[in-house]
Amino acid sequence: MRELGEFALIARMNAGRTQAPGVLLGPGDDAAILAAPAGRYVVTTDMLVQDRHFRLDWSAPADIGAKAIAQNAADVVAMGARPSAFVVALGCPADTPVELVDGLVDGMWAEAARAGGSIAGGDVVRSPLLVVSITAFGDPLSRAPVLRSGARVGDVVAVAGRLGWSAAGLAVLAGGADRELFAEVVAAHRVPRPPYQAVLGLPAVAEISALTDVSDGLLADLGHIAESSGVAVDLDSRMLVDPALEPVARALGADPLDWALTGGEDHGFAATFRAGLDLPPGWVAVGQVGEGAGITVDGVRRTGSAGWESFTSG
Amino acid sequence: MRELGEFALIARMNAGRTQAPGVLLGPGDDAAILAAPAGRYVVTTDMLVQDRHFRLDWSAPADIGAKAIAQNAADVVAMGARPSAFVVALGCPADTPVELVDGLVDGMWAEAARAGGSIAGGDVVRSPLLVVSITAFGDPLSRAPVLRSGARVGDVVAVAGRLGWSAAGLAVLAGGADRELFAEVVAAHRVPRPPYQAVLGLPAVAEISALTDVSDGLLADLGHIAESSGVAVDLDSRMLVDPALEPVARALGADPLDWALTGGEDHGFAATFRAGLDLPPGWVAVGQVGEGAGITVDGVRRTGSAGWESFTSG
Repeated sequence: MRELGEFALIARMNAGRTQAPGVLLGPGDDAAILAAPAGRYVVTTDMLVQDRHFRLDWSAPADIGAKAIAQNAADVVAMGARPSAFVVALGCPADTPVELVDGLVDGMWAEAARAGGSIAGGDVVRSPLLVVSITAFGDPLSRAPVLRSGARVGDVVAVAGRLGWSAAGLAVLAGGADRELFAEVVAAHRVPRPPYQAVLGLPAVAEISALTDVSDGLLADLGHIAESSGVAVDLDSRMLVDPALEPVARALGADPLDWALTGGEDHGFAATFRAGLDLPPGWVAVGQVGEGAGITVDGVRRTGSAGWESFTSG
Repeated sequence: MRELGEFALIARMNAGRTQAPGVLLGPGDDAAILAAPAGRYVVTTDMLVQDRHFRLDWSAPADIGAKAIAQNAADVVAMGARPSAFVVALGCPADTPVELVDGLVDGMWAEAARAGGSIAGGDVVRSPLLVVSITAFGDPLSRAPVLRSGARVGDVVAVAGRLGWSAAGLAVLAGGADRELFAEVVAAHRVPRPPYQAVLGLPAVAEISALTDVSDGLLADLGHIAESSGVAVDLDSRMLVDPALEPVARALGADPLDWALTGGEDHGFAATFRAGLDLPPGWVAVGQVGEGAGITVDGVRRTGSAGWESFTSG
């Protein structure tokens, strides 16, 4: 990196890339210009810090880049919006091999394309450790955004995407279980695959009364919906545990329900639907909205850690 | 910070704040929603790393926050756009005093208001050192953005705002000169004051053929304009050295012209105007656009460092 220098690095990061249609002006000037066909746009930002949110010995650079984009794109989609573009601020040590940055950037572009956008600009600075800060943009699919506050008593709670896979993969990496045997969950930890189309492909996003992505753990994220909406949620544990996780849990002496309830980072989606609707493809009913407050599982209030929290977890 | 926790901290950061009119939905959901009345918006991002871009023993937290916002707002204005909002990703150690974060956030809000926007959202994570990553948004003032590539032979080169003050202040802080005696340049280093109104108050931005903010140093930033526009620029040294910097330079045995040419961080603006126009208020002619390439000062090509470069400087 030191040999290449900032400007050559930025040129290298952008060489041969094709911007998404919403990027009216990409890198190279004081700022990028993005289209906002709806007259408004959705914005979210996330910072990932080396050895806190990722480890270079556990993940390939391309996986780290893809994950950074995926978690931001999932937040955009969780507003009922289509990802359009991303900007990336990257802090890295001066002795970072340029191949590491190449991998990181390739992973970002690949996931940005999967989400329907591109990398419209960024900043590269020197830092004692790797820090990746992403801001993601999206175009609302409908006039009214899909907020966390729309859940109503009687709604069905449903999820799209995997629950607990990333947590299981992290447990394998941290706990010394066989990484080859459990390669699928390890891969799920390294690169989440948010099921963007489960939301973007809906006939009308308005079918959903409340929506969030599962980033901090299902209990925590549904907790935000319950609190914002002034309702309670009861979950059915039978619908939460993925049988595919049971061998992993046995090998580690872990409870797969814990992973499903408190493991974040799969970046699936949790939503509430008006009762009586056929759930759209990709969605599975896992519970019910009721009167009251808080989250119960099979009618019992769940105690203990509800998910990831930046300053008290980990 | 550890005692307060992420969610309480975020609540504290947003308590009592009033969002700018363009922020349709502020913090509290998966993403913010911003207005784009022009159907397009300007985006820029910058990362600041502790001990690289700021020092806690040289600057108060509010100054660091204000500077982080100012340098991003200046990039928005340098596109001919009005700042509307900012999002902030903040990495900080778990033992960070909450007063430090309060100061940082207060400084950000104050400068955001000065630029015409507000803090629409963000992320707070644990990190071994303080990292501030800002993304700034703006609404274009006119149909065509003001790019770096519009300078034409014969145009007048002009600047708005201070040149070399921040570099002089940094030299005082680093070189042990009297901080009280030279308090004004030290303050300029701690908190740049981009002259936003010099651009935003123009009768028609179209008077400007090319525009940038001076962030890497005048030689470097005008170098970008010259390169993008396929022209040369000759600067008049008599117009560059601020007499107010001469006592500071004498005390440090430094050349004030160096500060003006290669010192960034004042975040003034450099622009090219069609010849024969009266320059608008706040703008001072400092040179001329000619045929050729590169930057000369009094007709002589300037050698040596042209400004800040992330991986080779500092």
